[in-house]
Amino acid sequence: MRVENLDGWQRTHLSTELGAHCLAQEVVLMGWVLRRRDHGGVIFVDLRDRRGLIQVVFNPQHSPQAHEKAHALRPEWVIAVRGVVRMRPDDSVNPEMETGTIEVFVDELKILNRSEPPPFPLDVDEAPTDVIRYKYRYLDLRRETGARKGLLVRHRVLSTVRDFLNREDFVDIETPFLTTSTPEGARDYLVPSRVNPGSFYALPQSPQIFKQLLMVAGFERYYQIVRCFRDEDLRADRQPEFTQIDLETSFLEETQLFDIIERMTARIFKEVMGMELAIPFPRLPYDEAMGRFGVDKPDTRFGLELVEISDTVRETGFGVFRSALLSGGIVKALRIEKGDRLSRKDLDDLRDFAAIYGGKGVAYARIKDGGEWQSPIAKHLSSEELSGINRAVGAGAGDVVLFGADSPQVVNDVLGNLRTNLAAKLGEVPSDQYRFLWVTEFPMFEYDADEKRYKSMHHPFTSPRDEDLEKIESQPELVKARAYDLVLNGAEIGGGSVRIHRSDIQRKVFTALDIGPEEAEEKFGFLLEALRYGAPPHAGIALGVDRLLAIMTGSESIRDVIAFPKTQKATCPLTGAPAPVGPEQLKELGLRIAKK
Amino acid sequence: MRVENLDGWQRTHLSTELGAHCLAQEVVLMGWVLRRRDHGGVIFVDLRDRRGLIQVVFNPQHSPQAHEKAHALRPEWVIAVRGVVRMRPDDSVNPEMETGTIEVFVDELKILNRSEPPPFPLDVDEAPTDVIRYKYRYLDLRRETGARKGLLVRHRVLSTVRDFLNREDFVDIETPFLTTSTPEGARDYLVPSRVNPGSFYALPQSPQIFKQLLMVAGFERYYQIVRCFRDEDLRADRQPEFTQIDLETSFLEETQLFDIIERMTARIFKEVMGMELAIPFPRLPYDEAMGRFGVDKPDTRFGLELVEISDTVRETGFGVFRSALLSGGIVKALRIEKGDRLSRKDLDDLRDFAAIYGGKGVAYARIKDGGEWQSPIAKHLSSEELSGINRAVGAGAGDVVLFGADSPQVVNDVLGNLRTNLAAKLGEVPSDQYRFLWVTEFPMFEYDADEKRYKSMHHPFTSPRDEDLEKIESQPELVKARAYDLVLNGAEIGGGSVRIHRSDIQRKVFTALDIGPEEAEEKFGFLLEALRYGAPPHAGIALGVDRLLAIMTGSESIRDVIAFPKTQKATCPLTGAPAPVGPEQLKELGLRIAKK
Repeated sequence: MRVENLDGWQRTHLSTELGAHCLAQEVVLMGWVLRRRDHGGVIFVDLRDRRGLIQVVFNPQHSPQAHEKAHALRPEWVIAVRGVVRMRPDDSVNPEMETGTIEVFVDELKILNRSEPPPFPLDVDEAPTDVIRYKYRYLDLRRETGARKGLLVRHRVLSTVRDFLNREDFVDIETPFLTTSTPEGARDYLVPSRVNPGSFYALPQSPQIFKQLLMVAGFERYYQIVRCFRDEDLRADRQPEFTQIDLETSFLEETQLFDIIERMTARIFKEVMGMELAIPFPRLPYDEAMGRFGVDKPDTRFGLELVEISDTVRETGFGVFRSALLSGGIVKALRIEKGDRLSRKDLDDLRDFAAIYGGKGVAYARIKDGGEWQSPIAKHLSSEELSGINRAVGAGAGDVVLFGADSPQVVNDVLGNLRTNLAAKLGEVPSDQYRFLWVTEFPMFEYDADEKRYKSMHHPFTSPRDEDLEKIESQPELVKARAYDLVLNGAEIGGGSVRIHRSDIQRKVFTALDIGPEEAEEKFGFLLEALRYGAPPHAGIALGVDRLLAIMTGSESIRDVIAFPKTQKATCPLTGAPAPVGPEQLKELGLRIAKK
Repeated sequence: MRVENLDGWQRTHLSTELGAHCLAQEVVLMGWVLRRRDHGGVIFVDLRDRRGLIQVVFNPQHSPQAHEKAHALRPEWVIAVRGVVRMRPDDSVNPEMETGTIEVFVDELKILNRSEPPPFPLDVDEAPTDVIRYKYRYLDLRRETGARKGLLVRHRVLSTVRDFLNREDFVDIETPFLTTSTPEGARDYLVPSRVNPGSFYALPQSPQIFKQLLMVAGFERYYQIVRCFRDEDLRADRQPEFTQIDLETSFLEETQLFDIIERMTARIFKEVMGMELAIPFPRLPYDEAMGRFGVDKPDTRFGLELVEISDTVRETGFGVFRSALLSGGIVKALRIEKGDRLSRKDLDDLRDFAAIYGGKGVAYARIKDGGEWQSPIAKHLSSEELSGINRAVGAGAGDVVLFGADSPQVVNDVLGNLRTNLAAKLGEVPSDQYRFLWVTEFPMFEYDADEKRYKSMHHPFTSPRDEDLEKIESQPELVKARAYDLVLNGAEIGGGSVRIHRSDIQRKVFTALDIGPEEAEEKFGFLLEALRYGAPPHAGIALGVDRLLAIMTGSESIRDVIAFPKTQKATCPLTGAPAPVGPEQLKELGLRIAKK
C-alpha cells in the first residue's frame, strides 16, 4: 500500500471537537489507527489524535475505494480521512467514549504512514515493563495514561505559574548553564573547555548566585523555570537533571514571600485540579516538626504524632531507657489505635526496620483494659511510670504503643519513618488530600562529625536570625537560620531563605563554616564583592517541579512527569547517552581517559 | 552609620506608581540612592527602584533625625523612606522625569545597606568599557539603558510567545540537556559521566531529535524556549550557549506553519513595539534570493539589487568577463544612484573589499550624460555591450555601476556583501523598519570540495521535495529541500523544514550524505527505528531569541539582551568560568589533562 502525502489536505477538527452539533458536516480528520474491526464487510477504525478517539466507518457500498484501502490498515498506521459526521445507531453508542454517540462515515482515505506492529499493545491500560517503556518512549507516550497525562498536566502547571508570576510583576531572566561551581553541596557536572584547555565549566546545581546578583542588579523580582544538574549517586527517584521554579525577591520578608507562594500554589490547584487550597499554609518551626513528627518534612494528612516521654521515665530503672537518657538521648512514644491491626510478627519485625535507621530496636506495648500493659518491657517499669506513659501518650485499651530510646537523631529517624510506614500500611493516608506546610526556623549549621566542622544546613548564603548574630562564633549550634521549606504530603517540594545581603555577615558565616578568606575569595569572591555595592535585603525560594507534579498526578515515580527521563544509572535507554567519544574529540579538549 | 533591617516595613508603592492622585498620602518607598544633593540644608535624593525614579526630600525642620541620617547617604546606598507625597514647587518641576511633578517629604529613613563608590557612575547614559561592564554586570544592569532594557523586552517577548503558542494548543515539553550528539554540524560540548567512566553526554545543539520523537509520540504541537550549546570558534557576536524558540507540528504543511509563525511574530511586534506587521511575509525562493541579493538572507529594507549580465556579455572580448564565463562563472552588476557619493578612493578600495570574500576585484563605471562610461574597463567593451549593460541594469547619468565576474559563489559573496556595506555607508538603511521574509526551496545538499562529498545544507532530517525524490541518488545537486529560513533585516532569525517521516527516505538521504548504514545506525538508529512505528508528517522551526531581541532593541550586540553573556573567548569575566578543577574531581571522572 503506497504511502501518500498530505497534498494540501487540512484537518478540520480534532476528534473530541466533534459532536452532535456537527451532524452531516464534512470533516477531515488525521491521526493514528488504534483498532480496526471488520464487521461483516464494514470496517470500523478507532482513530486517535492528540485529543482522543473517534470511530470512523468504511462502508463498501458507500466508498468502495476507501473500504478497499482500509483493509490494509493496522494498529498505529497514520491516516487522514474525509467523511461526514453522523449519529451512531442506538445499539452501537459507546458511553465510555467522549465521542461515543457519533461516527464519521468515510468518503476518502489517505494512508500517511505505515507502522510495524508495536512492541506492546497501545489499546490497553497496562504499562509495559520499564526497559521497554523507556526504549520505546515515543510509543509509551502515545498511551492515554501515565507519562502522557503527566506531561500535559506539567504544561498546565508551569503555564499557570508563569502567568501568575508575570502578573505579580516578576521578570523571567535566563541565567547561564556554562558557569562555575555553585555551593549546593552536591557534585557538579563538569564541561571541559576546548578554547581554554585544562579549564572546566560547571553545570549549575541551581542559579543561586546569579539570582542573588540579579537582586544586587536591582531587578527586585526574578523568576525562572530552569534546569539544574547534580552529579549524585542516584538514589530512589532522583534524576541527574531536574527542573525548578526558581525565584528571588528584594525588599520582602518571609511572610510576604510565603504569601506569594501560597497564592501561586492555590492558583495552580484551582486551575489544574479544580481544588480550593486553604491558605495561608500552617507554619511549623523545625524543632516542633522534629518533636511531633521526627522529620523536618512531616506528612500531616494523618495523625500518629510522636510524644517525647523522656521526663516521664527520667528516673526509671529500665536499662534501655535509662542509658539512652544518661548519654544525652531521648525516649519517644508512638501510639497506634486499634493495635490489633498489628500482628505479633509485625511488631517483631520492627527491630529490622529500626536497624535501617541505625536503631537497636523498637519496644512495644499492647494496652489492655484498665491501662494494663502486655509488653516484654512492662516488668522493667514501675506502675507509676506505666500510668505516666499512658497519660502522656493518651493510651487506652486496644492501643499499641511503640518506643524509641536512643540519640535524638536515631529516635526521630526510626519513629519518624515508622510513623509514615505504619500509616501507609494501616491505610490511614488519604490519597486525595494535599497538605502543604512551611517548616521554619531551621538550625543555621549542622555539625559534621566526620569532617569535624560545621556545615550549612541550607547553603552558606542563608541569613541567620538577627537575634542570633552574636552567637555565630561562640555558639553556632544555637543559631537559627531565616530558612524555610515548603512541604507537601511528607515531601520537601521547595526550600529557600532570606539571604545574607551584607558582606560583613557573609564573611562571618564563611568563617563559622571554616571557609577561610582565601577559599571564600576564590570561590565566591565576586559575590562578596557584589554585596559591597548596595545589595538590597532579598529572599527567595526554589520549588522542585518534578516532585510537585508527581504528587499532583499521583505518579509513583517522577519519571512519569518527565518526557525523556534517565535510569537509575543516569543513562538514557532511548538515545544511549552517555556514550564513548572518539580520540579526536578528546584530543581537542586536551583530555585523556585515565587508565584503570 | 548602622545598617538597619526591614523590621516589618512594607513598601506601599513603586516610584512611578506615584502621581498627583497620591497627594498627602503616606507612602513607604524602597530603593537605591541615585544622586544626593544638599541645597542649603535641605537634602534631595533621587531614589531609584525597579520602575524608575522619584525625588525624596529631607528637611531639617520637618524631621531632624531623618535629615541627620541623610547626610551619610552616598550613591547606590539602599534605603527605605516613610513620608508624604506632595507637589513640587513650580520652579522645581522636572519635565524629564516621569514623577517630576511630585516629591516625597520624608518622615523616617532606614538605611538598609551601604555601598562602596561604584567603579563607574550610574547616573549618566555613557556605558563603561566592556571589561568593566561585564566584571560588574550587577552594576551595569542597574543602568536604565542597555542590557537592563534588553532583558525587560526579552521577558515581554518570550511571555507573548508562550501566551500565543499556549492559545494555539502547543504544549511546552522539556527535553534533556544531558544527551547524545546531535547532527547540527557544529562541535558539541561534552560532559564526562562519573557513573559511566569513559562515557560522555553531549549538551544539545538543538532539541531536534527529541522534538521529532515527540511528534512520533503523537503530541502534534510542541514548543520549548530552550537553551542550546555550540562549541564553536567564536566569531563576532556568537555565544557558546544561546536560546531558541523551538517548535514542531504534525499534519501541517509549510504554509500552515508559516501562518502560525507570522501571526506569532505580528503579535510580538504589536504587544511589545506597538507596531502592525504586514502578514503574510513575502516568500523568496533561494535561487531568486541569491540572484537578486547575492545572499540567502537578504536585507530588503533597501533596494540596490544585483543584476546578472552574463548573457549580455557572453561574447565579449573583455578578458576578465570572458574567462569568468568560460570557466562556468557569472557576471553581475550593482547600480548605485547618485554615484558621486562614492569617491575615487572608495572605488579603488573595492579591491580590498572583494579580497575578503575571495574575489579578485570589483570593476566599476561612472555613467555620464548619454549613457557614456567613465571606467577603466570601458575600452574593453563594445558599444553594443555598453548600451546592453546600461539597459540591463537601468543605468543613467550620475550612476555608478559595479561589476563582479567570477564563480557564482564569489560574485554573490562579493556583491551581496558590498550591497549591504554600501547601503549602510550611504545611509540607505532605515533603522526603524522591520522587514521579514521567508527564503524557501533551498538546495538539499551542498558539495564539500575538501571532503569530496555532499553535506546537508540544513540537517539530514530535512525532507526533499516530493518531485525530487528520484534525483537523490542520480543528481543530488538538483534536489530542493522543503526547508525555509525566516529572515529579518538581513539576519537569519529562524530556520526549519518539513522533516522526513519515512525511514526509507531517511535511509536514502543518509546514503546520499555518505553516511553508511552502520554509522546511521550508530548515530541515529533510535530515530530510524522510531520512523518505522507510524511517524506522522511533521514540520518545525527554531527561532533565535538572542538575534531577534538584538534587532528589536536596536542593540549592537546580542550581549545586550543576555543577562550574563560570555566573552569572545567563551569566558565569564564575573564568575571566572571556566576554571581549573582539582585532581580529585578529575580522578572521579576518570580523566587526565593531556600533556602539551
